[in-house]
Amino acid sequence: MPSYTAPVKDMQFVLHDVLKVSAQTVPGYDELEANFTSAVLDEAGKIASEVLQPLNVVGDKEGCKLENGVVRTPTGFKAAFDQMKEGGWTALDCNPEYGGQGMPYVLAVAVGEQFTAANMAFNMYQGLTHGAYSAIHAHGTDAQKATYLPKMVSCDWTGTMNLTEPHCGTDLGLMRTKAAPQNDGSYKISGQKIFISAGEHDMSDNIIHLVLAKIEGGPEGIKGVSLFIVPKFIVKEDGSLGERNGVSVGSIEEKMGIHGNSTCVMNYDEATGYLLGTEHKGMRAMFTMMNEARIGVGLQGYAQAEAAYQNAVIYANDRLQGRDVTGAKNPDGPADPLIVHPDIRRNLMDQKSFIEGARAFTFWGANMIDQHVRADDDAAHGIVSLITPVIKGFLTDKGFEYATAAQQVYGGHGYIEEWGMSQFARDARITQIYEGANGVQALDLVGRKLAQDGGKHVMAFFEIVKSFIKENSGNEEYEKSFLDPLKAASKDLQAAGMYFMQNGMKNPNHALAGSYDFMHMFGHVCLGLMWAKMGKAAMDALENGASDTAFYETKIATGKYYMARQLPATGMHLARIESGADTVMALDAASF
Amino acid sequence: MPSYTAPVKDMQFVLHDVLKVSAQTVPGYDELEANFTSAVLDEAGKIASEVLQPLNVVGDKEGCKLENGVVRTPTGFKAAFDQMKEGGWTALDCNPEYGGQGMPYVLAVAVGEQFTAANMAFNMYQGLTHGAYSAIHAHGTDAQKATYLPKMVSCDWTGTMNLTEPHCGTDLGLMRTKAAPQNDGSYKISGQKIFISAGEHDMSDNIIHLVLAKIEGGPEGIKGVSLFIVPKFIVKEDGSLGERNGVSVGSIEEKMGIHGNSTCVMNYDEATGYLLGTEHKGMRAMFTMMNEARIGVGLQGYAQAEAAYQNAVIYANDRLQGRDVTGAKNPDGPADPLIVHPDIRRNLMDQKSFIEGARAFTFWGANMIDQHVRADDDAAHGIVSLITPVIKGFLTDKGFEYATAAQQVYGGHGYIEEWGMSQFARDARITQIYEGANGVQALDLVGRKLAQDGGKHVMAFFEIVKSFIKENSGNEEYEKSFLDPLKAASKDLQAAGMYFMQNGMKNPNHALAGSYDFMHMFGHVCLGLMWAKMGKAAMDALENGASDTAFYETKIATGKYYMARQLPATGMHLARIESGADTVMALDAASF
Repeated sequence: MPSYTAPVKDMQFVLHDVLKVSAQTVPGYDELEANFTSAVLDEAGKIASEVLQPLNVVGDKEGCKLENGVVRTPTGFKAAFDQMKEGGWTALDCNPEYGGQGMPYVLAVAVGEQFTAANMAFNMYQGLTHGAYSAIHAHGTDAQKATYLPKMVSCDWTGTMNLTEPHCGTDLGLMRTKAAPQNDGSYKISGQKIFISAGEHDMSDNIIHLVLAKIEGGPEGIKGVSLFIVPKFIVKEDGSLGERNGVSVGSIEEKMGIHGNSTCVMNYDEATGYLLGTEHKGMRAMFTMMNEARIGVGLQGYAQAEAAYQNAVIYANDRLQGRDVTGAKNPDGPADPLIVHPDIRRNLMDQKSFIEGARAFTFWGANMIDQHVRADDDAAHGIVSLITPVIKGFLTDKGFEYATAAQQVYGGHGYIEEWGMSQFARDARITQIYEGANGVQALDLVGRKLAQDGGKHVMAFFEIVKSFIKENSGNEEYEKSFLDPLKAASKDLQAAGMYFMQNGMKNPNHALAGSYDFMHMFGHVCLGLMWAKMGKAAMDALENGASDTAFYETKIATGKYYMARQLPATGMHLARIESGADTVMALDAASF
Repeated sequence: MPSYTAPVKDMQFVLHDVLKVSAQTVPGYDELEANFTSAVLDEAGKIASEVLQPLNVVGDKEGCKLENGVVRTPTGFKAAFDQMKEGGWTALDCNPEYGGQGMPYVLAVAVGEQFTAANMAFNMYQGLTHGAYSAIHAHGTDAQKATYLPKMVSCDWTGTMNLTEPHCGTDLGLMRTKAAPQNDGSYKISGQKIFISAGEHDMSDNIIHLVLAKIEGGPEGIKGVSLFIVPKFIVKEDGSLGERNGVSVGSIEEKMGIHGNSTCVMNYDEATGYLLGTEHKGMRAMFTMMNEARIGVGLQGYAQAEAAYQNAVIYANDRLQGRDVTGAKNPDGPADPLIVHPDIRRNLMDQKSFIEGARAFTFWGANMIDQHVRADDDAAHGIVSLITPVIKGFLTDKGFEYATAAQQVYGGHGYIEEWGMSQFARDARITQIYEGANGVQALDLVGRKLAQDGGKHVMAFFEIVKSFIKENSGNEEYEKSFLDPLKAASKDLQAAGMYFMQNGMKNPNHALAGSYDFMHMFGHVCLGLMWAKMGKAAMDALENGASDTAFYETKIATGKYYMARQLPATGMHLARIESGADTVMALDAASF
């Protein structure tokens, strides 16, 4: 049975040594002293390890059951959910006006990594509620906020997002769900939505569905889409729950993973809905949820890899098999532990160097969201907007890759469900698909974000890399191990961008055929930048006489691994990109 | 529900245009005229599509059930197995002396790809029997052959291989299963074996277990391991079945995939066993099975990718979502099919170019096995021995990667079990693990095969590549698209080999830390060679006035894709290898 230990020290390193959060002039960040963040992270870590993680396998095995219109979550989920609510863990960064704790987003992200690594399917109930909270908070009327937010902050009511229909996922312009205006200003919503995570369950008193639908008589396609609040139970004027609304669960999907989360087909049959935001501007409002969700999904990707990695390390130290070719390490035992073997280390170092880079990248992004939201930093917003598809696409592709790599360490036992490693891979797999499949993230990055505001944000990104290299040059060993590889990778990325500019004008397919590789290159450069930052921070700590030298030396060694063994992928991606669209588009559809 | 159509034309292309099997002077190959192979492959294809494929989802959903010591296979498996037996499909390449059809191995492999793509879990029952047949055929006494082979050829009795124990997989020297010699020359076998595919089931009258065990008083470790025939029912002198032997199923494992195959814990309690081959030389005898099994597993890897790919193509042509950025392709419909989008094509071309290259690679290997076994060609044997770990490791890693890539084309539907795409990924996953996890294949390649016979085989391999390039130079377009990339990739591979030679002497970890990357590089060079061969064959066919120009032009275009977009991976692998072992081995075991 797998275990999970919150990597609090690694998180503290990113928050304090690398990002130096408490020194930043972002409102609320002055609270983020190391003793405060460690207290929060330790406490969250206990819940993750002791409450959520033991339910992970239970959720996978039992799944959710639909009986007479009621969805039963797995044994223990409700009690754990109540415990999360009571501890205030559902609302760390929510607005205190509605009962939240008002902490910076970056801290909520760190805690979210722990809960997600411990039990991804479980944490989605709260995560989706947070997304719906954010959309109502950003776009709701004062009355809507007063009605829904306090109960959503406390998770007495949970939330969902309803986009997909059987015939339309990415292309929401094809949507058929209708909204018929009523005399009292409300709408009657009718249609079917699929893949609705946490669409129905037994852990909250009410469920607040945010539903995309077309108002009758509005514009065709995506321009006619609006967003609606559709509560499971109508909320009466006094805030109490009234009658059951015309929304019901049609079925629960049987999925490859995240069995503990109920993925529902939701049927809307003249359900009462309330317009959220402006009519026909539903996509804008929904994107408030989606951008947050995309960062959350990127986090899910690497968090599953982290949980899988921790167990792979335990197994590699325990399992005796073969001998170290350079001499026995466990001469009195029948064999040496797996971890002596170079290829096992290669595998574990791939995982470790990715996961720690991914964490720094995600926290860096969360920090910029705080800079934008709390300190009106538009430049930070520009970078976040640029890197959101990279966080989502790259971290989930690699997260799945490394969750399976961790499973591989177990050999045959990795394939047996009882050992729990298969679940990490199966759960991680969805992160590459939902909230916009990763191909759509690549399209968003190359087709939209690169050129946004005249390419301002990508230029700002390259400037960040360039300045960092310039400011930190001078130490030969550090330059060779960290800065030179980063410089080379960044040059590859710029060359790819240049290729798109020069060839994408003539034929956009030359850019789009390389979009997926570009997303991966971009991810590598971001993680390379993070490792350069972490390597520098670790060197500084050692220079300043930090006592835990082994910890910082491990950071430097892990960073060197990433730079030497992962960053060279940019060259391959560049070669693929520069081969253009011709070989990609050569075949007739019938020739595949 | 997925479908499967046997790619007979693609197989014919490899057999006749590329390998030119019927023109080879290998005994039995003169029968392999195109009209004969197409008749066999068409007939097998019908069984694959109509009998086996429809049972694939059934097997996944129902799994195998253990009730009172009896294992029930999924609904329909027994009837399909009987149909296979009646058609003689279980013994295509078996020795006619024992009832086999005596066809070349290369044809059996082509048929095996079809059956495996249609239903991997099902085909394993027959595949393991074939492996056990081969071991007894190679190492058994005449009496053993006469007793067991006819019934195994007909699959009235099936076979298994029993290696793994709870505490030992790769390191079989740790084995605890004991063999106590009896006065009549037999042995009493006692111990527990795990992960025994097809260990117990209801489709055959008897099960012939091949079991590794240590004869009491023999040498320590791997040198004391012998191989035994342990039938489920003792076979009487007249060939009829006698009493139940002391072997029983302890439990069936719950696995991530291949649910239709019963993976058993087998308990041996003083079971009667008969020595197969020489005492204490069990590993040598077992390797007869393992080498065959490893090629079979490589085939499973790309066959799952093929089945998944076929369905991804159907979905990409059916599913309407978004518009071609260069102009609507389905202007009268609400949207264009997915296949218009460059990133969908990038994904499908990755899959297609890999699968077809993998098929050619596997058939090429099978052809060399025939050259060795039927025409005593030692050079061919040397190459097969070298590439066996590459076929196993590279084709299964990529097979899994592309099975999940095909799943990705389905978006959210790919994650829902009902659509069947998850099964391809879950089934393919085991191929990376069993018959020696892929890290062990890499170790076998770099630690053993490279230096075998003074490096003769790897030098012969490079000579094959070099000669091919030399003999086929002259056409500028072909050189640029095919030969130059192959030359560059082959150069990378040689540079890696050189790095191992120069640095592995000082410290073997410098070679072993790069073994996995080397295996992947080697795979790419092999597939590059195959595509160069296929490109040339297609050009020749067009020059010779072949009527189906679209087919051959598609081959050339697909080959160009592989050369431009897949082969550049060798540069990345070389960079990883040349970074050496230092970053890989830097950490203490406690620092992971």
